Amino acid sequence: MPNECDVLIIGAGPAGLMLGCWLARLGVKARIIDERPAKITRGHADGVQCRTIEIFQSFGMAERIQKEGNELSEVVFYNPDKHGNLVPTSRIPDTQPDTSRFRHVVLNQGRIEDFLIDCMNADGLKVERSISPVSLEFADDAMAGRPIAVKLAHLVPAVDGSDPASGLYRSNIISNEPGLPSSVSKTEEINVKYVVGCDGARSWTRKQLGFSLEGDSANIYWGVMDARPITNLPDVRVKVVLHSADAGSLLIVPRERNLVRFYIQMGTLQPGEKLDAKTQSAEKIIESARRILAPYTLECPEIEWWSVYEIGQRICKTVSFKNRVFLAGDAFHTHSPKAGQGMNVSMMDSYNLGWKLAAAVKGTANPSILETYGAERVEVARQLIEFDHKFSRLFSGKPAVAESEGISMEEFQAMWVRMEKWTSGTGVKYAPSLIVADTSPAKRDLAQNIIIGSHFESQMVLCYADAHATQFADRLVSNGRWRLIIFAGNVANPDQLQRVADLCDRLTHDVESPIKKYTPPNADLNSVIEVLTLTSSPRRALPYSAFPELTRPLVGKFRYPTYDQIFSDEVSYLDGGGAAYAGYGVDPTGPGCVVLVRPDQYVADVLEFSRCVESLALFFDAFMMMGGAL
Amino acid sequence: MPNECDVLIIGAGPAGLMLGCWLARLGVKARIIDERPAKITRGHADGVQCRTIEIFQSFGMAERIQKEGNELSEVVFYNPDKHGNLVPTSRIPDTQPDTSRFRHVVLNQGRIEDFLIDCMNADGLKVERSISPVSLEFADDAMAGRPIAVKLAHLVPAVDGSDPASGLYRSNIISNEPGLPSSVSKTEEINVKYVVGCDGARSWTRKQLGFSLEGDSANIYWGVMDARPITNLPDVRVKVVLHSADAGSLLIVPRERNLVRFYIQMGTLQPGEKLDAKTQSAEKIIESARRILAPYTLECPEIEWWSVYEIGQRICKTVSFKNRVFLAGDAFHTHSPKAGQGMNVSMMDSYNLGWKLAAAVKGTANPSILETYGAERVEVARQLIEFDHKFSRLFSGKPAVAESEGISMEEFQAMWVRMEKWTSGTGVKYAPSLIVADTSPAKRDLAQNIIIGSHFESQMVLCYADAHATQFADRLVSNGRWRLIIFAGNVANPDQLQRVADLCDRLTHDVESPIKKYTPPNADLNSVIEVLTLTSSPRRALPYSAFPELTRPLVGKFRYPTYDQIFSDEVSYLDGGGAAYAGYGVDPTGPGCVVLVRPDQYVADVLEFSRCVESLALFFDAFMMMGGAL
Repeated sequence: MPNECDVLIIGAGPAGLMLGCWLARLGVKARIIDERPAKITRGHADGVQCRTIEIFQSFGMAERIQKEGNELSEVVFYNPDKHGNLVPTSRIPDTQPDTSRFRHVVLNQGRIEDFLIDCMNADGLKVERSISPVSLEFADDAMAGRPIAVKLAHLVPAVDGSDPASGLYRSNIISNEPGLPSSVSKTEEINVKYVVGCDGARSWTRKQLGFSLEGDSANIYWGVMDARPITNLPDVRVKVVLHSADAGSLLIVPRERNLVRFYIQMGTLQPGEKLDAKTQSAEKIIESARRILAPYTLECPEIEWWSVYEIGQRICKTVSFKNRVFLAGDAFHTHSPKAGQGMNVSMMDSYNLGWKLAAAVKGTANPSILETYGAERVEVARQLIEFDHKFSRLFSGKPAVAESEGISMEEFQAMWVRMEKWTSGTGVKYAPSLIVADTSPAKRDLAQNIIIGSHFESQMVLCYADAHATQFADRLVSNGRWRLIIFAGNVANPDQLQRVADLCDRLTHDVESPIKKYTPPNADLNSVIEVLTLTSSPRRALPYSAFPELTRPLVGKFRYPTYDQIFSDEVSYLDGGGAAYAGYGVDPTGPGCVVLVRPDQYVADVLEFSRCVESLALFFDAFMMMGGAL
Repeated sequence: MPNECDVLIIGAGPAGLMLGCWLARLGVKARIIDERPAKITRGHADGVQCRTIEIFQSFGMAERIQKEGNELSEVVFYNPDKHGNLVPTSRIPDTQPDTSRFRHVVLNQGRIEDFLIDCMNADGLKVERSISPVSLEFADDAMAGRPIAVKLAHLVPAVDGSDPASGLYRSNIISNEPGLPSSVSKTEEINVKYVVGCDGARSWTRKQLGFSLEGDSANIYWGVMDARPITNLPDVRVKVVLHSADAGSLLIVPRERNLVRFYIQMGTLQPGEKLDAKTQSAEKIIESARRILAPYTLECPEIEWWSVYEIGQRICKTVSFKNRVFLAGDAFHTHSPKAGQGMNVSMMDSYNLGWKLAAAVKGTANPSILETYGAERVEVARQLIEFDHKFSRLFSGKPAVAESEGISMEEFQAMWVRMEKWTSGTGVKYAPSLIVADTSPAKRDLAQNIIIGSHFESQMVLCYADAHATQFADRLVSNGRWRLIIFAGNVANPDQLQRVADLCDRLTHDVESPIKKYTPPNADLNSVIEVLTLTSSPRRALPYSAFPELTRPLVGKFRYPTYDQIFSDEVSYLDGGGAAYAGYGVDPTGPGCVVLVRPDQYVADVLEFSRCVESLALFFDAFMMMGGAL
């Protein structure tokens, strides 16, 4: 391995791997190390939220999750009736309609990591295991702009003595993992531009920076178990949220390969008391489950994994140092697992960071855009901690049965539904910054449902050239490009077509146009900022060849025309559609508008045709740089 | 390799590989040989019809086709206007609504073969290449019931001297392929129970049996080419059916990887005249295309494959010998490629044969069921030849322009639409036989849209246990099982639930019940005949645990309950549904009925509850055998 690279990723869990995928895809020289000799293969996180699958789709790997994972269709709430007997009180969809084009899926973390690793490997980046960071220093006389010196220890992989079927292997109730190798075969020192600590709740990177997680514990502990159950509870292949009258609560999450994930409330701790890892066992977890489920029965002939954890919420609100060292994932936020957020928010952290790092490394953007990482993601983490604090306590609380005191199950369920857009990951909205424009009533009028700072939502549209019904957001692939989405309106109207042609002409030729200014001379016209066009008029109204070249640029060595950048909003032959303008809140007979979308699919601005080039110039000139390598 | 096996498959094209998949999946000892040293990688067939994808789905590989292939959404007809200028005259969907849950897709034959090979390999069967059959003899004193002795020559793989980019490599206009190896390294003799010749239009197997293809040639030749075109024709990423005024016809089929398949009319031959292979070239094909397309332009910077072929239709109406040797695919029917039928009908041939052969080999059915193979598939081939005869001549004919004589384009298009169910492969209907019951008005009344002899069509249903919206036909996996589909009706009604319970009780316990009689004592209750249940009442009407055990049998070592055999006909949360009883034409408030489905998804019978066990006993006792190995 060379003793220098541009980005060092410490930790190859979901956050580190997602960052590795992004950087490898964008051609950044990166290394990703992990002190563990092997990847986890079972247990741990399993919820994959809609927004996460949208991101996986943008890397071309959503279908693997959909194929192997179990889609959660329904949530059933079991509560005690007035006699204290458990009864199903209501059933609701697990993913609310119109949340996303994808659904909430569950699949064990090990497989999610496999998909990320395959994706990263395909782009030439591999995890280096049994490597532990030893020191991190800033050098002012940095060689070639790589001011960070990191010393790495190559470890001798030891046989891991713990039982992988036990969740205590890598659990949060034991402070050091058993069996981790300790002897060092060699050390190396590398010089890097950036370091990202994706090294979990006990982050080494965080400690080097002198930052710490702050928060508290609820002094409640739960068991978690992946098993194949035999039960006479009427529901076990849908999500079951169950509060017993006074034996505690339980969550059932049906999983892939006929597994079922059980979260089982077990007991409380005195303030300051530590859970004794040695006294925990799968049998204890099952006993607790039986008490809660009674009179229903439970047998678990096969248990794949189990663990015990304490409920607590902790956050570190500073996540970067000199814009050179960053924290992502559990390294700056930890909480309880039941809402299925941890793995997702962690990957979304590094997804937010990846394209910005790549642009800074490659010199296509000013490194100041890296400041938006902390601003955007700490706020998400803060909301997560706040949500989990409330949610985990409601989940562990005794329900109000008949006249008794306790938590109102109606209130609990109402919160569940209210929070669903947030827990799906699709509710995230970034504040105005260098790369998110301010909003205004005039902008809202142009596209009433396109929210600046939120991700660009999908609508079914029809591909002009091949008549394929297409989820519009599927075109927002993760390749580092910005996108201009032209809502071209009714191009059957010659005046409107002329307006579109004029806009494209200015975007292509004006010296101040960012497309003209930041696209290298020999690069394809869509290689920095890609134009996607959506007409409100149907395909029959105008032949493909009548569209301006910017909307169907000639690409590659043979200058083939592109056929996948122009779409119409009309009903497809077999797959619906025809509601995109309505869905986006754009007037189909109006003057149209332009939506600027970041490489991570978040809406950066909404613009009218007339001032579009000038506004884009102002926006991009604030951070884009010329002469970088694509 | 052992010198005996149960089935020898000669030829590893689509027909042979499909048979290999089936036999390997069902645990039959088979070998599959091919004289060629390598698989094709480009060109050749490319149309994958809906019914074919349904079968691929039943083996778990439909998604690979859908991912890599190009779905054809639209057909545009270009015809000369009254001045002779080419104009698009109409646009229609390529797959008519309600044809199938799948769509017509195009993907090159080499990839289809890859998927089949991967599927077959996963079940332990591999293609043996560079092996050629030398002789085939029947021995009366056959050892262990393997009466056929086949001598095989192992060939020395020679460097294939032909250009794979040229379609003349394995074309129909040269009688022997260049570069095929001719030296033999060794010979072996094997004794087998069955031989299936999937060895193409020049079938060695067919010649051994003394059978021949009969039919004629149209004395018209066409070129075919896979290229990446640059053209100003407004449509090139949808299917284009184009008749020029007097320069011939052309078909454009947009393909995967930005390829476009062109079929281009080139010329006519005198009766008896042979096309000279040496004079053919890609340039000649492109020249013909330009003449037809004029005034539109065509450049092809990249050509992946091309070929030239004569239009003709030939059939061999005898496809088996002593119920021991069979022909499948091109070995008994050849025709022109433009309707995308050949590869599909060929795979459907061997799909029809596979489960019957497996049952005969394993002793679970009387070999007399093999007689139904020829009866069922020769009729399909006959229809194919008849269709192609008419279709290819209409395609090659001069259109009637203005007042001139010629083929009516309205008539051509009407035939196109009319034949679409047939060309999709979903129109096939097998006649009554040992394994297809007679129909009757009473049966039609029970399920008005379920046609005995046709495949069981899919409807969206809701899985009782997990609330997943499910395509019902996805449950008809190719694993050799027969299925009883119980339309249970409204089980919220206690009387109807009792009727279902009584039926299940009889099916489980009556000595004459085929489930009781033909399921080996220690096998799971669903292992020979699987019961699928569809209620018209919603999931909330009856808890899962209230269904009879036959409908959710306990399986495997740990006796886990099954969760994927009971469905309800109701609207799902997010995916529609709720129209299955209407779609099948079964009265949701009526007494219900039972549909018997063959292992290849064709409907064998429709039964009322009351006489169900007796009728099933009669049906199965005619061919099922006890004591076979599953």
